[in-house]
Order: sequence, then structure tokens, then C-alpha cells
Amino acid sequence: MNIAIFLAKVVSRILVTFALILPLCVQAAHPNLVITAADVSQMRQAITKPGRFSNAYSDLKAQVDLQMAQAINVPVPKDGGGGYTHERHKNNYQLMYNAGIIYQLSQDKTYANFVRDMLLAYAQLYPTLDLHPERKVNSQNAGKLFWQSLNEAVWLVHTIQAYDLVCSALSAQDIASIETKLLKPVAVFLSEGQPSTFNKVHNHGTWATAGVGMAGYVMNEPEWVEKALYDLEKSGKGGFLKQLDELFSPQGYYNEGPYYQRYALLPFVTFANAIENNEPQRKIFQYRDGIILKAIDTTIQLSYDGLFFPINDAIKSKGIDTIELVHGVALAYSLTEAPGYLDIARQQDQIILSGDGLKVAQALDQGLAEPYPFESVAFGDGNDGKQGALVIMRSQLAGDQAVLFKPAAQGLGHGHFDKLTWQFYDQGQEIVSDYGAARFLNVEAKYGGRYLPENESYAKQTVAHNTVVVDETSHFNGDVEVGNQNAPVLNYFETSSLGTVASARIDKAYQGVELKRTMALVNLAEVEKTIVLDVFNVVSSSEHQLDLPLHYLGQLIDTNFSVSVSTDQLFALGAKNGYQHLWLKGRGLPKQGLAKVSWLNENGRFYTQTSLVNGQEEFLFTQIGANDPNFNLRNEQAFIRRVKNNKQHQFISVLEPHGEYNPGKEYTLEAESQVTTLGHSQRGEVMLVELTIAGVSYLIAINQSEDGAIDQDFQYQDQSFSINGRLAVFALNDDEE
Amino acid sequence: MNIAIFLAKVVSRILVTFALILPLCVQAAHPNLVITAADVSQMRQAITKPGRFSNAYSDLKAQVDLQMAQAINVPVPKDGGGGYTHERHKNNYQLMYNAGIIYQLSQDKTYANFVRDMLLAYAQLYPTLDLHPERKVNSQNAGKLFWQSLNEAVWLVHTIQAYDLVCSALSAQDIASIETKLLKPVAVFLSEGQPSTFNKVHNHGTWATAGVGMAGYVMNEPEWVEKALYDLEKSGKGGFLKQLDELFSPQGYYNEGPYYQRYALLPFVTFANAIENNEPQRKIFQYRDGIILKAIDTTIQLSYDGLFFPINDAIKSKGIDTIELVHGVALAYSLTEAPGYLDIARQQDQIILSGDGLKVAQALDQGLAEPYPFESVAFGDGNDGKQGALVIMRSQLAGDQAVLFKPAAQGLGHGHFDKLTWQFYDQGQEIVSDYGAARFLNVEAKYGGRYLPENESYAKQTVAHNTVVVDETSHFNGDVEVGNQNAPVLNYFETSSLGTVASARIDKAYQGVELKRTMALVNLAEVEKTIVLDVFNVVSSSEHQLDLPLHYLGQLIDTNFSVSVSTDQLFALGAKNGYQHLWLKGRGLPKQGLAKVSWLNENGRFYTQTSLVNGQEEFLFTQIGANDPNFNLRNEQAFIRRVKNNKQHQFISVLEPHGEYNPGKEYTLEAESQVTTLGHSQRGEVMLVELTIAGVSYLIAINQSEDGAIDQDFQYQDQSFSINGRLAVFALNDDEE
Repeated sequence: MNIAIFLAKVVSRILVTFALILPLCVQAAHPNLVITAADVSQMRQAITKPGRFSNAYSDLKAQVDLQMAQAINVPVPKDGGGGYTHERHKNNYQLMYNAGIIYQLSQDKTYANFVRDMLLAYAQLYPTLDLHPERKVNSQNAGKLFWQSLNEAVWLVHTIQAYDLVCSALSAQDIASIETKLLKPVAVFLSEGQPSTFNKVHNHGTWATAGVGMAGYVMNEPEWVEKALYDLEKSGKGGFLKQLDELFSPQGYYNEGPYYQRYALLPFVTFANAIENNEPQRKIFQYRDGIILKAIDTTIQLSYDGLFFPINDAIKSKGIDTIELVHGVALAYSLTEAPGYLDIARQQDQIILSGDGLKVAQALDQGLAEPYPFESVAFGDGNDGKQGALVIMRSQLAGDQAVLFKPAAQGLGHGHFDKLTWQFYDQGQEIVSDYGAARFLNVEAKYGGRYLPENESYAKQTVAHNTVVVDETSHFNGDVEVGNQNAPVLNYFETSSLGTVASARIDKAYQGVELKRTMALVNLAEVEKTIVLDVFNVVSSSEHQLDLPLHYLGQLIDTNFSVSVSTDQLFALGAKNGYQHLWLKGRGLPKQGLAKVSWLNENGRFYTQTSLVNGQEEFLFTQIGANDPNFNLRNEQAFIRRVKNNKQHQFISVLEPHGEYNPGKEYTLEAESQVTTLGHSQRGEVMLVELTIAGVSYLIAINQSEDGAIDQDFQYQDQSFSINGRLAVFALNDDEE
Repeated sequence: MNIAIFLAKVVSRILVTFALILPLCVQAAHPNLVITAADVSQMRQAITKPGRFSNAYSDLKAQVDLQMAQAINVPVPKDGGGGYTHERHKNNYQLMYNAGIIYQLSQDKTYANFVRDMLLAYAQLYPTLDLHPERKVNSQNAGKLFWQSLNEAVWLVHTIQAYDLVCSALSAQDIASIETKLLKPVAVFLSEGQPSTFNKVHNHGTWATAGVGMAGYVMNEPEWVEKALYDLEKSGKGGFLKQLDELFSPQGYYNEGPYYQRYALLPFVTFANAIENNEPQRKIFQYRDGIILKAIDTTIQLSYDGLFFPINDAIKSKGIDTIELVHGVALAYSLTEAPGYLDIARQQDQIILSGDGLKVAQALDQGLAEPYPFESVAFGDGNDGKQGALVIMRSQLAGDQAVLFKPAAQGLGHGHFDKLTWQFYDQGQEIVSDYGAARFLNVEAKYGGRYLPENESYAKQTVAHNTVVVDETSHFNGDVEVGNQNAPVLNYFETSSLGTVASARIDKAYQGVELKRTMALVNLAEVEKTIVLDVFNVVSSSEHQLDLPLHYLGQLIDTNFSVSVSTDQLFALGAKNGYQHLWLKGRGLPKQGLAKVSWLNENGRFYTQTSLVNGQEEFLFTQIGANDPNFNLRNEQAFIRRVKNNKQHQFISVLEPHGEYNPGKEYTLEAESQVTTLGHSQRGEVMLVELTIAGVSYLIAINQSEDGAIDQDFQYQDQSFSINGRLAVFALNDDEE
């Protein structure tokens, strides 16, 4: 270590000497990364007039003033994530960035001097540092200021922008110190110093290439930009462009899901802006048919009521107001001027002090916002868009309803073993739920704030989701590598005014077992209701136990079959693969016919799942919380439909929102399910579901043909019907029943 | 029955004949109950101008128009509460009332005719009715239109007003039919026909006297008014005035708690208005030092963040926007013009179409609202205000915090066995919770929508509350009569800028055991925190097991002692008195010193209860849900501090809100308790609590003297202190520790 420090000092002294001759910063126009000199001149005008932008400026200035009243603190790195020095260095880069902005807008040198002094403090500290003491053993990703280099790259992305904002105010000597002792060494450390991370087609690589590439623009190192774009060897096998090729599907869906997508977004948005401002000839926003804009837009589509759909390792309170997406939406509006983005910006309620942020602020001031067009859509997964899909179905007929159906790929290390699972949302609430991640972010008492052990033992396991579990083992036997290599297949997706339907299958989740699920969110205009239809086919060469859980949020209200409840003792349902975390509270074996389970969500609406059962589906009622010695899990409810010793089985059900419970106003409406009949049959490739609800009989036809033959005719009760497309809904004459 | 119907028909025919000669309605000015002719003329003006009042008028008119488009439906009574005919008759009286208002304001006879036609339909039906088929066996309170006469009285209160609003538009013949076949028989049935209910000093009596008294005004039967005011014998032992004397404390607190208080309020407000408008010389609003206004105001004080404190059999979603309190607030504003009532009216967001409602609407339009002054206050219980007290403590120092401390009387049949219990609220959320009532109002599948069996077996029991349980039996051994006769004693209450303190005792909850609890919500200005101090003394002549539960809402985060958790099976904690409904999830025996339990509420704040323990207090961690075969209970958490074989024990603890969990913005602040020392000692009658929190040491002194000697001097660590009042808070110099 001592030799390393000594060498670093020698090198930096040589660089300082050289730099004194040729201060690099002042050669080019500054700022010119995300914010340009032209932006600054418009922003300076805007802050003189009342409106959202000047409000945002005043707010940020007040906040920066408060923080600048404290002494500059650049501590020797000591703590891991969440610890003091970790948080301090995170605060510092944000503060430098903010103070840099305020300097540009106020033209008050105090702010530039503050950034300078902090940069100089870092320039003094950095050459003395070896790798961080809290780094993981044998890690390829150790940082110096932080325990992992990911944070160091994020530090550089912010700090290089802060430097760009103030460097025109700095002396040649300070520029030399800062560049040669700090910014260049950091950039070199994050590129040449960690080739495996820098070249990796992965979010960590995006942050590294963004930081290094922007450092190249600011400090006039065009080679760094080339390496950032095409990898260290400039081979094109890695680097920023390859990341744009590989990490998103053609529609802009990010393999790990929205929680990680919004995080991944920021370096893409930031570096792309810098590329556009420095080298517009690269046409970065046209790259791959506008993939950056698509990635932003898809992130918005992946939300419900302001929160991201919590698939994979997601923390549920994360939503569209996340700062990464505030930047993304500002860019999206700036690129398109589509008024729907203003609707999102309005909900974000945060204005970025940038050129793009100014456009958003002024457009909002002018009242140009229009509702963002949320859609029913299947996002093809994988870089080719063919590795399964994430399907969103929406309806506004009877509430603000959404189904998330997930025949998506595994999604790497944060992915869950939940092929073909689904979730349901209504009236702003989660109804059929996904546990999300088992984690209390940064809460030291909860396993240091990291992912809890129960994230592996429960949250990732198949039984924690709303999809079939074979023989109490998880999909791919819980092996993420196998999962990554075997995505489900989306058979079809279609959306129309009748509703949205999708079907998908996978035969690799379990050896010798094919899982096929067809789901539809169907609008029944005559009764002003929307129902979710779910037909899950399991076909196997040998006999298995099949479990299909439904995790719901709310209070169980009723079942139309008797349930034998464990009243004075409870046992765990199983021993492993997540089953050890479920208390078995009761079980019931409904007779052949319709089995109903009703619950009441805290939105005050009732939900009934009506299943068409053959007399052999047992219903197990469970609560999460067994084998949880540290009270780490939320105690949520589920019921699991179970069949044993079956080679094939079809789980058929309808989910029906109904009624209203309003004890405040003292009324209760339609607390009982309105579904009175449910039938299922097949006419060639057309699946027929007969449903009587609220007195109206429906025939729902779904064309399952695989060869794309879309038009089908069929007979039903001596009548002729035809279906043109995937989904048809016929309201039958009641009298004929 | 046939004879009864025959006689009724004969009587009504005689009355009709008589009435044809002298139609009574038109003799006096109409309307003249809650709404007067003078009000109507102002209201007619108001609806011609834009504003809240004309909006409310348009809304109601549209709603009435929609309902009037349906055929009039006056079904033969058949169903009990929640059933079809029950709900239909409830809708009918509301519709008649609303249509009557719209008639007066629009002067469109269509509305008067609609009310007339419905009244005539009732006049045809009513004489044919015997007692309701769904009445309770041997009930004194059976109705005819409804299963209980309470609903019938509510029907009359509304219907007589509807009639008053339209009668000037009716023909003499219709007036005669309606009065003689319907309104007079109903009034006679509810008074002479049910003397025990009519004369009873009870909420049911209030509705009956209000209905009959108003019928007396409208139909010129001054004797009925006298009887309504003084009871059927005009003795003054019952009737409306006696109800005002007995049912409220001098401060206007209603013995059954806020959930029932707001319900009780409406007939008081309504009939008092009618008395004032017809016989101002009675000075009804000055009666008992303005008790009606006090009752309205107290109902507001008994709320937090818009919802009533859920003591006794309360359903939690009931709050200040309840229609009864909308009427109450309109009256309160009309009587006082205090701008704080407008703040409440604004939150209620509902304008009554009445003279008082007009005043509120116009004042809101003018922007006159000011924050309603919520206070720390002890509401003396019982008609003399000396049967214990319901104590509310509030602080705005560090959030919007409230303690509800309940040394109140039993509160009759809906009361819970929860003497000296408490609840805590912060940032709009329930933190230390009360189960409230176990009931799903009007949800047929849940025990017909009535109180669930678990309301008796769990919700009312002592262990369901945050107070001491002796030997696993409930207070008064669960006997409500004994409870009604033995209220706790409020020793003292004091509020100042330092905080609020109260102390209370009861020695009748358990034979030979004195329970004494001192609670304080203390502002610690130096650290900008507010803590709840809780010292619970139990003194007994013989040895007992003492349990002190704390029911909390949120996720357990940490304990500073080891907890042995039941991981793969759970058992019920006990066999009866509510214990059979608690699963025992874990237990721990902290060493002498400080025992901490921390949890995270969904408001994103952490809460830590720090207890000063002697090494013999065991902590039991429980979850509600055992012996719950119908999934009727919410699965909430508690921990129970338990000592065994003790003659006396002191439970000492501090509850501390701290930090913030914000995974959406990805930060967590102060997740750990800041309390580092907690000590307790006695200096004569002064109780001293030493507390170090966030590095500052405090000495909190509470003067427990019973004789009113308020000034006390004492020594602590060689320093002299004096306390002038009940509560003193000294920030000690840290260096001296």
C-alpha cells in the first residue's frame, strides 16, 4: 500500500506540473454535459420570473445554503453501505452538483468556491487511498471512496458534472490539482483499473462508462469517450452502445424489471445527453430506433397509481416520482413535447434545474399537461424481445384496474422464480399481490439494511407468487442460471375494447411438465364489470402435486364451502422452498362445481375468486410468518389450490371485484359475488368460458390457435358464432339459458 | 290483529272526517322545524348565485331527480337490519326529506307531489301493519315499519320534516289522510304506545321524543311537545330535557364515547332547532349552560386526523365527516360564528341545505375558516362529570401527536373492559392501537353484519387493550353492570407548554387490587422530541399474575434482548377472556435495566418502547387470530409484559417516536432508539424520572400529591429543584452526569 501511495503521489505531481502549463478545462465551452451554456442563459432568464422553475431554484438554493453553512467534510472512507462515511460521500457529490447549478444560475462565486474547496479536499484525500476497507473479499468491484466501485462511478457521474459547472471559475492551479489528483485518477481507476466492470454489459458498466465518458468530454480526453462507447479495446463488444443494444428489449423493457429499470435509466439519460450536446453527429437519441426514449416511456408504463409493479426484488414504495425518472421524463418531454409526460411530471412534483427541466416547468406553467396514455401492452423480454414478455392489461370500465401477467425471463440475480405469475390492482390498491423484496432498506437492525435471508428463503421462491408450484419445489429448482437460460414463450397477446388477453407457456420450469396459462381482463359492458379470467393448464408425463397460490391483501370475508380452521395451534405448511414460512390456518375441499373465496380490501371493495373445481382441488388457507425468528416477514394471507397425484390439471377461475364497504357512511353494497355459473369447454382451438354474472350470461371465446389462423367459427347451444381475433365476448339472451 | 286493524281503520276514518273540516297543517307557518320560512327565502336567493350552497343544491337536486325517476316503492315490512325492506324504508325517509327541501328551494310542485304520493302510500300501508315480523322476542322496542322502534323514530324525525316542507302544497284531503292515517298514529305509537322507550333517558328515547315533539309542532299538538320535553306524565323524570341533563357530562361528553356520541347528536340538534324556532322563550340553546353546543364541540375534540378515537364498540372509519356532525357543525357555527368550525366544515366537504348550512357555505366562500383549536383536555365522565374522565393529550412539537388515556366510566353495553387503557397517534396514524369493535357493518356473510361473537370474546376483553390484566381475567370479571357502577377516579390532569400529565386509579376493577396509572405526553424542546411517559402501579393484598399488553400497528424491527420465537408451530396464549384469540409468537426475559422494543409504522416512522425492568418482567409477543374459525379478526401484533406471583409491581416505560424510513427516496434516518438511560425514583410525593435521550439528560418531575399542595421542593444529585404544578421538565447539564 505504501508503495502504491508513493507512486500515486509521484504520478500526480508529474501531472500537476504538466497541467500547470496547459489548464485543460478552460479550452472548451463549459458547462457542456447535461446542461449547456445555452441552457444556462435561458435558465438565468427563467429564474427572474415567477413559476415552477424559479420556485425550484429558490428551494434548491435555500437547501444548498443550509448545507454550505456546515464545514466541508471529506472523511477517510471507513463504513460500508448505509454507514457514516458512505452516506457522507454520497451527500457530498449531490451537494457539489447542486452548488454547481446554483453557481451557474446565481453567478455568485461563493458557490463555485465551495465546490472548488470540496474538490480540493478530495484531491488531497484521494491519492492517499487504497481499496476500501469494507470491500468484499476477492471482489472485482471494490471502490476507494466507497466499498463498491458502483458507488464510485455514481460519484464520478455527479462530480464530473459539478466540476463542469464550476471549472470556468477556477484558477489554472486548482484545475490542475483537481484534474490530476482526483478526477483523472478516478476515471482511470474506473476504466483501466477495473476492466471487467467497465467492459461488462450490465448496469454497473453503464455507470462506469457514463462517468468516464463524461470525464473525457470535460477534460478533453476523446479516447476515454471512445472507450466508454465501445469498451476499453474499442471492440464494440462492451461499452455504452453495446449496453443499449443488450440491456433493453426493442420496446425498451429492462430485463430486471421496473425497480431496476428506473435505477439503470439515470446513467443512460445522463451520458446520452452529454453525447448529444458534445457530438450531435452520433445521433445517440436515434440509436436503435430511439431506444433511450422507449426505455423512459416503458418505465412509466410499468407503473400503477404512481408505483412500479413490484416484480422481482422490488421495494414496493418506489414509484414514478423517483429522481431517476424525473430526469427521464424531462428528457422525454424535451425530445417529444408529448403532453402526457407533463401529466407524469405533475405527479412527480419536482422540477430539474436543467434545460429540459425548464421546458417541463414552462409547459406545466402553461397548463399543457394531458393525461398520460397508459396502455395494455406486452413488453417482449430480452434484447431480441423474444425471451418471454411482461404483460400489462388495463381497464377503466369499472375502476382503475390492471393485471400484470409475467411470462417474462428470469431477470438475472434479482429475478424471482415466478414464471407465469400475475398480480391484480384496482382503485389504487394491490388486490392480488406479490411480496416484492424482503428487505428493510438501510435499516441496520434488519440484517444491516441488506436483502434479508428471507428474500432467498421466501420472497424469491415460487410459492410466494401466484403461479403453479410442482411438488413443493421452485421453478428451475431455484437455480438462477437455469432460469436465465429458459424464458417462457408468449403464445399471443391481444387488446381491444372487449378486453385484453394473453397466453404463455413454459416447459423448462420443471422437467417433464408443461405449464400454460391464459389470462384475460374482460370488459362486461352490460353489467359494467371487469373480470379477470384465468385458465392454467398443467400437463406432465408423470404424477405430481400441483399448488396454485393466490396471495391477496385484505380480510377474508366468506367461502361457499366449509373450511376446517386450526383454532388453537398452527403448523408450518412445509419444510423448504418457501413453504416453511407459511402457517397453515385452514383447509377445505369444495365439492364439484363453483368454489368461492371472498375478501375485502382496504379500498372498501370486495373481491371474489370463483373457481370451477372438480371436487379434488383442496384449498389451503395460509399466512406468512412461520420460521421467521426475527419478525422479518409481513404476515399476509393466501389460499393455495392443491391437487395431488395428477398428470394433468386445469385450474379455471374468475376474479370479480364487487360492491363497496363503507362503514364511515354506514352502507354496504353487493357484498356477495354476482357470479352464478361458470363453465368451460373447448371447440377445436377455441376455448369457451360460460359465465353468468349479475343475471347476464356471457360466452367468452378465446382463440388458442398457434398457427395464426385467427378467424374461427363454432357452434354453441345450436347457435353459430364466429371469432375474429383472439377474444370475443357474447352477451347471451338470458331467456335461452 | 284483525281487530286491531279494524279499530285503526275506524279511528282513522273518524279522524279523516274531522280533519276535512279543519285541515291542521295550514294553520301555522310552514316550514318551521329546523328550516324556517325565513331561512327558505334566503336560501332561494343563495341558489341563484355561484358558490358552495348553490353547488350543494344542484348536486342534491340531481340526486333526487335520479331517484324520483324510479317508481315509488313502499314495501310491506319484512326484513331486519340491512335487508331489503329495511334499507328501502330508510332510503324513503331520506328521499322524502330531500325532495321536500328541493320543493321549497325550486318551488317546483313536482317535488311536493312526489313527497305527497309517497306519504299517501305510507298512509295506505301503515294502518294495515302489526308489529314487525323480525322484531326480537318479548322486545319493548319493536317497530312496525322496522324491526326496532329506534328506526321508526328516526323515520318520523325525517318524515315529519319532509311533511312540514311540503304540507302547504297539499290539499285538505291529503293532509287529513296523511296526518290521521300515518303521522299521528306513528307519533302515538312511539309515545303512548311505547312508554318505556319514550320515557327512557337513553339515545332511543331521544329519537322518540324528537320525532314526537316535532310532530306536535307541525300538527298543532302542544301536549305532545310537553310530553316530549318532560315525559309522558310530564313529570320531568324523563323526556328531552332530562336526557340533556343525564346523557352528557357538564363538558358535553357522552358516556358511550364518540362513536355513539355523534350518533346521539342528531336528534338533539334537530329537535333543539325546532324548539328554538317554535318556542324561543324556552332558550333551549342556553339550557344547562349551553350543553348542546358543548356536546357538538366535544365530539370534534374527540377526533384525530378526521377520525373519532375508537374507544368501546367503535368502527374505526367513522369520523368528523359523518352526516350527524355535519348538522352539528352547521348549528355550532350558526350559534357562535367561531371560525374554527369552518375548518371542520371544510374537511366535511358537505353543505347542508338549511339556514345554518347557508351560513357555513357563505362563510367558507368568503374564506373565513381558521384552524380548529384542538386541545389537551380531560373530559369528566358521567352526568356530574365526576365518574372518571376521558383524557386527550396533544402535542405539535414533533409531529401531530395525541395520547388518548381512558380512566373513563364503563359506558354501558357498548363499553369495553379497558379501564386506564391508552392509545397513541402520530403523523395521522394509529401507533399504539385499540381494536375497536369486531364487526363488519352490514356485511351479511359476517354474522349478518351485526357485532361478531369475537366482539364479546375478544374486542371487549381487557387483554385486547393497553392496560393491566390481573390473572388473565377482565376488569369487573367482564360484568358490565359492575362496570357501570364503578368508574375510575381521575387524580389530576394538567396541561402546559411542557406537556400534559394525568393520573388516575381504580380499585374496583379487581377485588383487592389497586390500579394506578400516570401518563404524560412530554415535550423535550432541546431535542425536538415528544415522548410518552407511562408509570403503572399495581398494589394488591395477595399475589397475582399481572399482564400489561401494548398493541401496536406496524412491523417489529428490533428488541435489545433475545426473543425465543416459535418458528414451526404456534399455540394460543390462553383459554378464555380474550387470551384464546392470541397466538404466542415469542417470549423473552430481558435482564434488569432497559428493555427496548422497536417497530416501524406504515407512516414511515420508528417507535421504541423502552421499559425499565427488574429482570422479572417477561415479554410475550402475540398476534391476534387464534380460535377464529371464520377469519373474523384482524391479525394485529402486541407484546405483553408479564410478572408472576407479585403483590405489587410498577410498570415503567417511555414511548419514543424516532427517525424515518423512506425506501421510495432511499434513505433511512435514526432507525435506533435514542434513549440511553431511564431511571425512576420518589422524593416524597414527587415522582422523578431521569431520561437521557439523543445525548441530553432530562429530569422529569411529577407531583403526585393528592391534597392539592402544588408547590414542592426537592433535592436531586445535590441540586435543589422546585416544581410548581404537576409537571416539571429540567434539561440537566450533560457534563454533570
